Amino acid sequence: MGKTSTANLLLPFLFVLFSSSPPLITTEASKLGSFRFAPRFFGRFAANADLNNLQTHKSLKIQYETRYFTQVLDHFSFSNLPTFQQRYLINTDHWLGPNSMAPIFLYCGNEGDIEWFAVNTGFVWEIAPLFNAMVVFPEHRYYGKSMPFGSRDSAYKNAASLSYLTAEQALADFAALITDLKRNMSAEACPVVLFGGSYGGMLAAWMRIKYPHIAIGALASSAPILQFENIVPPETFYDIVSNDFRRESVSCFNTIKKSWDAIEAEGQTEEGLLRLTEEFHLCRNLRSTQDLEDWLESAYSYLAMVDYPYPSDFMMPLPGNPIKEVCRKIDSFPDGTSTLERIFAGVSVYYNYTGVVDCFDLGESNQDLGADGWDWQACTEMVMPMSSSQSTSMFTAYDFNYSSYQDECFKHFGIKPRSRWITTEFGGHVR
Amino acid sequence: MGKTSTANLLLPFLFVLFSSSPPLITTEASKLGSFRFAPRFFGRFAANADLNNLQTHKSLKIQYETRYFTQVLDHFSFSNLPTFQQRYLINTDHWLGPNSMAPIFLYCGNEGDIEWFAVNTGFVWEIAPLFNAMVVFPEHRYYGKSMPFGSRDSAYKNAASLSYLTAEQALADFAALITDLKRNMSAEACPVVLFGGSYGGMLAAWMRIKYPHIAIGALASSAPILQFENIVPPETFYDIVSNDFRRESVSCFNTIKKSWDAIEAEGQTEEGLLRLTEEFHLCRNLRSTQDLEDWLESAYSYLAMVDYPYPSDFMMPLPGNPIKEVCRKIDSFPDGTSTLERIFAGVSVYYNYTGVVDCFDLGESNQDLGADGWDWQACTEMVMPMSSSQSTSMFTAYDFNYSSYQDECFKHFGIKPRSRWITTEFGGHVR
Repeated sequence: MGKTSTANLLLPFLFVLFSSSPPLITTEASKLGSFRFAPRFFGRFAANADLNNLQTHKSLKIQYETRYFTQVLDHFSFSNLPTFQQRYLINTDHWLGPNSMAPIFLYCGNEGDIEWFAVNTGFVWEIAPLFNAMVVFPEHRYYGKSMPFGSRDSAYKNAASLSYLTAEQALADFAALITDLKRNMSAEACPVVLFGGSYGGMLAAWMRIKYPHIAIGALASSAPILQFENIVPPETFYDIVSNDFRRESVSCFNTIKKSWDAIEAEGQTEEGLLRLTEEFHLCRNLRSTQDLEDWLESAYSYLAMVDYPYPSDFMMPLPGNPIKEVCRKIDSFPDGTSTLERIFAGVSVYYNYTGVVDCFDLGESNQDLGADGWDWQACTEMVMPMSSSQSTSMFTAYDFNYSSYQDECFKHFGIKPRSRWITTEFGGHVR
Repeated sequence: MGKTSTANLLLPFLFVLFSSSPPLITTEASKLGSFRFAPRFFGRFAANADLNNLQTHKSLKIQYETRYFTQVLDHFSFSNLPTFQQRYLINTDHWLGPNSMAPIFLYCGNEGDIEWFAVNTGFVWEIAPLFNAMVVFPEHRYYGKSMPFGSRDSAYKNAASLSYLTAEQALADFAALITDLKRNMSAEACPVVLFGGSYGGMLAAWMRIKYPHIAIGALASSAPILQFENIVPPETFYDIVSNDFRRESVSCFNTIKKSWDAIEAEGQTEEGLLRLTEEFHLCRNLRSTQDLEDWLESAYSYLAMVDYPYPSDFMMPLPGNPIKEVCRKIDSFPDGTSTLERIFAGVSVYYNYTGVVDCFDLGESNQDLGADGWDWQACTEMVMPMSSSQSTSMFTAYDFNYSSYQDECFKHFGIKPRSRWITTEFGGHVR
């Protein structure tokens, strides 16, 4: 494995780190009208990768054993709660063993099936042999197969059953698992290095802060640990997404920017909505422009998140440098082509790169339509204020409103967010 | 306030740090037979200081305002639990204000009434003016007036109501309180320095690890953060206590060492128990030698904890260098004086320095006789294995037995300890 390929794999990590953060459209967006929960990392327009055929880097050997570890449900209190089985993936092929001081690479599982992250984090698999490292991918509680109370339905039943779905508990899971694993393998002396991207990157960074005795370092990629309260301007995320497009092509940026008005104008009449339905090849008649706008906004945001320089299949099958490809499409039409025709061609790179989709179902979701894990997290501690500015971004203006956010969370989960808790627990403000 | 007096006050902190750790006799000791819970810091033979007349250092100005702060009961989960009122003491007399960068001295309240700690931590009060520091003494949840569920009875009702009594929750209380306080006082830029002794010292050390964004430093005094699992030998505490006596006088050490056999020999008969009752001026007839032994052991342990070089009234009114005084008594009798007569004279320095006690009630307690907070903590996460060695200490041999410890905890609280959790959460093992 040469220096070049390692560097190539590093690139997307750094790229995503600087270029984008997670988007904000939620599964519940349509239910809740135009209300937006905090960012969700893998939304209804994304999570349709085929778990049986996930491997993107066919050349990379991604092999692991699947195991389960008995976890305490509430690490920080002593109620008589049932334990649960946490899934983790492990590979010791390259590890030199207990007396070697060879490292353990621990990927901090995010809000989804851990296999999905394992096969899409080639970087860890690629460098593990170079360091003779053990690789461990623990799954985040309440996601994938790591369900408390025996099943997803029971775990997601209500606020009481969901209440242990927090970042702190997830970090404690990782700490308990790795401590036990090291003890059982007589690997106490082996240093642990953390990895993570997006929310998993936040966990990696936070774990390095909170468990310095467990981890000697963390590579936190695209980890918006400062996207809380007023630490960064709330427009930051959408400005970065917009700049990713503007950087490729100013005309592309401008076409997207003016498309919202075009959609709104069409949406004023029933006939206009019908024309939008046809123009965008929707499976069902469009009832409100908001649904379409969410669908488009989501595509742009995810494109920024996965703007890798090589073909990938993390959220959708995509070419390398997908934003460049989207803008190439948008800009490729002759003068006089309508904005909406351009937009549709552009967004098709995201939603239909393989060309197999006949029509698009805006209501489609691979996740349950019920309460979703990330929505719960966003409504409890992960309150990440996000606005979009009409002057600096290619999106329409949106002002984050904490009061209505809180109301929606209460309506939805019967719970009030603790919006200041994350910075109290993990820091973030510069003093 | 000169350099000398500061140094004098520093001395006891360092002294206690090196000379002793908390003892292990529990309120429940007699109930549970000879079973011992993990160390308790303020047991039934200690907590009888008069809260209305606490101030030891009459020359020191200890003044504060009492306030309450609304705390979340479970910081790490999102159940719909009631909040509670946490008491804290605050003094801003010497603080230079928001724009001064003048520090905040935060004392980490231990397992007891916070006023007790405030008036017995002269060091903080003495140095605060030198640093123009604000002083804050938050009370530990479930102690003093900081009771969840509205009252001590409700808080201590059962394992479910007690379940939020953990060190992690207490640290989060401190973090939430100080963050809010700083915000309200526009004191965000003011550095926080932590103080604490004994269990409060453990909290100070742990808080510095876990909340580095909140505290720039911690002075942790007599804080046995390594008294878990097999990090230090389990005999450490009693060996240190014993050495404190041996250092003063080898004959004193030897007299105490041989007293246990003398007590046991007397306790073989009813007449012997009666003689012990008289010899030790007990209010009620002694039923078992264990009660007397616990009472003596407790005195020696506490004496080591509060072996300050000046008169104090932390647990009991005591002269300066009380161990020296105990040994002076024990050694002062003419040859031929019985061991028990010597022992009684010695222990009277601890239990009856003021000379006002007519008889001693071994069952006496200023704390409720029901489940006590520290016993709960010792039966959940604060599992501190303690043994005593007959060859290296002046105490009888005792081997910590985790299995029976666990059984007793289950019998008592219906809960099983998680003995490895503290080192998972806070570290401690050297890798």
